[in-house]
Amino acid sequence: MSFSSASAVIATGDHYAAEIFPGWDILGNANGGYLMALGARAMAAASRPHPVTLTAHFLSPGKTGPISIHPQTLKAGRSFNTMRATVRGGGKNLIEMLGAFSELENVDGVVRVDAEPPALPRPADCVAVVPQESGFPPPLMGQVDMRLHPEDANLFQGIPSGQPLVRGWIRLKDDEPIDPFGLMLVADAFPPTVFNADLPVNWVPTLEMTTQIRGMPEPGWLRCKFSTRFMTGGVLEEDGEIWDSSGRLVALSRQLALMPLG
Amino acid sequence: MSFSSASAVIATGDHYAAEIFPGWDILGNANGGYLMALGARAMAAASRPHPVTLTAHFLSPGKTGPISIHPQTLKAGRSFNTMRATVRGGGKNLIEMLGAFSELENVDGVVRVDAEPPALPRPADCVAVVPQESGFPPPLMGQVDMRLHPEDANLFQGIPSGQPLVRGWIRLKDDEPIDPFGLMLVADAFPPTVFNADLPVNWVPTLEMTTQIRGMPEPGWLRCKFSTRFMTGGVLEEDGEIWDSSGRLVALSRQLALMPLG
Repeated sequence: MSFSSASAVIATGDHYAAEIFPGWDILGNANGGYLMALGARAMAAASRPHPVTLTAHFLSPGKTGPISIHPQTLKAGRSFNTMRATVRGGGKNLIEMLGAFSELENVDGVVRVDAEPPALPRPADCVAVVPQESGFPPPLMGQVDMRLHPEDANLFQGIPSGQPLVRGWIRLKDDEPIDPFGLMLVADAFPPTVFNADLPVNWVPTLEMTTQIRGMPEPGWLRCKFSTRFMTGGVLEEDGEIWDSSGRLVALSRQLALMPLG
Repeated sequence: MSFSSASAVIATGDHYAAEIFPGWDILGNANGGYLMALGARAMAAASRPHPVTLTAHFLSPGKTGPISIHPQTLKAGRSFNTMRATVRGGGKNLIEMLGAFSELENVDGVVRVDAEPPALPRPADCVAVVPQESGFPPPLMGQVDMRLHPEDANLFQGIPSGQPLVRGWIRLKDDEPIDPFGLMLVADAFPPTVFNADLPVNWVPTLEMTTQIRGMPEPGWLRCKFSTRFMTGGVLEEDGEIWDSSGRLVALSRQLALMPLG
């Protein structure tokens, strides 16, 4: 099943119907970025085609099955529509979202970039992440082709690099083109940086995630970097950069997650 | 007038009443961080005492006068309450917010920090920012004591440093203690980084801002750094760090703003 099919939404009166499909989960819970993509598709359908920045708060884990998405327009501006939405499933509110939507084609180009794409060996020289029966790596890894930087890739064997850093390539299965909704998934698809930080490997629940979409990705591999600087007060941020095959930054993400319990 | 008085909220039935006071503005529009502080006080009053992460989308400029704040509980969890709120004033929705609230006293300490506070000359050796009749520097500068790093401080004279970076010290007027709501203000109080980037100095409207509160600040000067790496597609992010006098990170912020028009 393609990502576009797995994240499709259907207008139904005042809300949107969709489905959490099996295979897009981490130990039985839908990936947060996948949930954001589902919600964002409905918000875009109700406003403008592309998310520019989208914030989600995660309320309950998403289980496979039907969901409904309830978008509301807060402001229909000249350049942006500000939208909120609630995603509901299994009788619960799963995520609450707040974001701005626009037409990415209409935006001006790059003015200045003071950063470079992460240096990575070629995909063939990186470490492919393959889902395992144990659920770790999770089923979600069957939906994407992920290749981790060899220096960051031993976390699944319980050998952290010592640095809260995860770098790698990613594309959708069968090289399906990635749209801004696919970028929502990618921004939350890599293993948590904290797994490389000599800390207990355990559930890292996301409290909040904001993903900025900075451009339409060109076809091909995406080059990604996720890093953490501050683990304080029981929480940590995870900052992400996603660069396309042409060397342009296409998404910037930050999530606030709870420290894993030992 | 103290910040705590200027940002007070009063429970009134199902919402909260407050006021945008004169002097907390940039060219007549209330500072965004001040609006977030007002909204956050009502959200906290309706849930738990401290914002942990708060996202705001800015819908209309806030003018002086009465406002109302309408919080709604999305989830009352074990450790966090997820809240949304709309701030209304002058017959308009001013900002929409989404955030998590908790008790900051109950959180665990620092696990790991891979960053240092910005290096700054002593406050006495930095450049004090004083409001001018022209509105630039803005009246807000009368509410705080801000001292910019000499290398970053010529932007108000129309001499950008060339780097989209602004570093400096800040405290509230009369050294009023800063609480997590004051940190919301501080995270949006410094001049835009883009003013140091050889680009037109003009209005830099904030689309979205997320501020994470990582700890209760100790009394004294706060040490701040704001930087921008990506100016693309008509937008730029501004990443902030706020450190307290004991050398601890107390807030991490990111806003997405529109590029100033020439």
